[in-house]
Amino acid sequence: MIFDSLIERIGALENPTVVGLDTAYDYLPDGLRAVRAAGSAKLRVRSLRLRAPDEVTFEDAAAGILAFNKRVVDAVCDIVPAVKVQIAYYEMYGPAGIEAFEQTLLYAKSKGLFVMTDAKRNDIGATASCYAKAYLGLTELGEGMEQAFPSDFLTVNGYLGTDGIKPFSDLARKFDRGIFVLVKTSNPSSGELQDLKLENGMTVYEYMGSLVEKWGEETRGKYGYSAVGAVVGATHPAQAAVLRKQMPHTFFLIPGYGAQGGTADDLKVCFGADGVGGIVNSSRGILCAYRKEQYAGMPFDEAARAACLDMRADLRRAVYGK
Amino acid sequence: MIFDSLIERIGALENPTVVGLDTAYDYLPDGLRAVRAAGSAKLRVRSLRLRAPDEVTFEDAAAGILAFNKRVVDAVCDIVPAVKVQIAYYEMYGPAGIEAFEQTLLYAKSKGLFVMTDAKRNDIGATASCYAKAYLGLTELGEGMEQAFPSDFLTVNGYLGTDGIKPFSDLARKFDRGIFVLVKTSNPSSGELQDLKLENGMTVYEYMGSLVEKWGEETRGKYGYSAVGAVVGATHPAQAAVLRKQMPHTFFLIPGYGAQGGTADDLKVCFGADGVGGIVNSSRGILCAYRKEQYAGMPFDEAARAACLDMRADLRRAVYGK
Repeated sequence: MIFDSLIERIGALENPTVVGLDTAYDYLPDGLRAVRAAGSAKLRVRSLRLRAPDEVTFEDAAAGILAFNKRVVDAVCDIVPAVKVQIAYYEMYGPAGIEAFEQTLLYAKSKGLFVMTDAKRNDIGATASCYAKAYLGLTELGEGMEQAFPSDFLTVNGYLGTDGIKPFSDLARKFDRGIFVLVKTSNPSSGELQDLKLENGMTVYEYMGSLVEKWGEETRGKYGYSAVGAVVGATHPAQAAVLRKQMPHTFFLIPGYGAQGGTADDLKVCFGADGVGGIVNSSRGILCAYRKEQYAGMPFDEAARAACLDMRADLRRAVYGK
Repeated sequence: MIFDSLIERIGALENPTVVGLDTAYDYLPDGLRAVRAAGSAKLRVRSLRLRAPDEVTFEDAAAGILAFNKRVVDAVCDIVPAVKVQIAYYEMYGPAGIEAFEQTLLYAKSKGLFVMTDAKRNDIGATASCYAKAYLGLTELGEGMEQAFPSDFLTVNGYLGTDGIKPFSDLARKFDRGIFVLVKTSNPSSGELQDLKLENGMTVYEYMGSLVEKWGEETRGKYGYSAVGAVVGATHPAQAAVLRKQMPHTFFLIPGYGAQGGTADDLKVCFGADGVGGIVNSSRGILCAYRKEQYAGMPFDEAARAACLDMRADLRRAVYGK
């Protein structure tokens, strides 16, 4: 069961960190922007537009982003268990960006990392099945089948209810993948809808949490966690503490550490007394570490590794008490 | 204002229909599957996998789907105002599928159709901005800017609240595009979360509806509808009637007609007395019309047109009383 393997890898590394590859072109150092001509050759040239030779194209941006991601992956793959690729940052570069997304997944996988696709997909059953096939399963092709964007984990949005989630949880079970359902998100407005009190006394996020526990019931692994995880922001410790008690079989993906203001002490409530139960995401704080004073002068990949080591120390202290 | 233009186009055609291009490879007639060799040439060959020459690839599927979509667009562009492209059906064919998605948008636009991307995107502010740029705005590229997937309208999910929606509504206003926020979806389980009663007496979907009215406040056009629309399923007429009264400035995108069981008489409550206020989606019912007995023997594009004409007559009767 994939959450068992993830938990064991986190334990072996003593590091519940997932590095977010939310790579925008403007995060790249000048050096990588300069290799665009060479990089572009790796991605097909688009027929739709004509450009001046000195103009940056989506293909250039995608090639630079892929090269950047590969160097970050090389720099951290021995100290972190997983990467989370935020697909929005690739969609904004068109089909070339989607190719860079796909190749980032494959490269991270080839380096032994668990790969999470952060896409927050959601739709009615028939359409949700298409998304599920794309990220967690296989797409039918005449007699054959193939996977579009191989991911170990996928984030999804549960606003549509059970029949919008089942296609994902069914394929997660069938192919030993996992999903994370948005329960309590890390953004400032998350409370507008999620914190509303229901007639039955629960909040909307607590109710979503109860649905997530139900959706995972039949897929619990040896550590008690199901294939249906939850996204619970580090920026709302009080709510996270409630959810941790309410959702004993649900593994948490925890965004909001660092750039968004969540601290290791805020998010330790997402973990059980055994230090198990969640994985913490940091994206910009690692990708753009080379721009911070404390890592000044380091190449971006060395700075990313240094930032990961500092984050690991911070989490070990807060979560494992080491 | 784009909803003004859409309303005028719907009025001129007396047809509040949006054709859903949710095109799966297995919807294609054998004829189009056969042209794959020719079609493939239009899309780049993928480097990642080697295949037997007779094996269907994502590129083959994407080329066939694009050819199918173009013929459907040609067959209906003079009788319907808009198409809705469901991106899940393209993501499942990998990067080649995304190219077919992009080229479908561009082709439909070139035929004078309003183009809706149904992607139900959602994320926290910074990431939502990336999605908004991709579909509604422009992506920065060094000194320049370019649009990834030009869409007149985009569907989004509001579970994250205002700061997850504002990046979309801001770009919609800036570039005269529109968004549709999920309020009451057409699927059987939609009530699980959406119909829950809140302490304040409202249901979750009613509360989401009130947020949508607020999000659109500053972008109302000459017909009183804002740039922030709502998705309201045809399969829940009682709730739709409540929402129509509660959301006088919100234009509805109405899924669920036909294949999902919603009838024209069910969904007429989504329209005002003037017959304005919504647009009705049908996808499989039109794309796969050629497989239905009533259109037997017609080529798929003629059958799609015939199904559109039948749907138009049905909507004219129910919505316009003609």
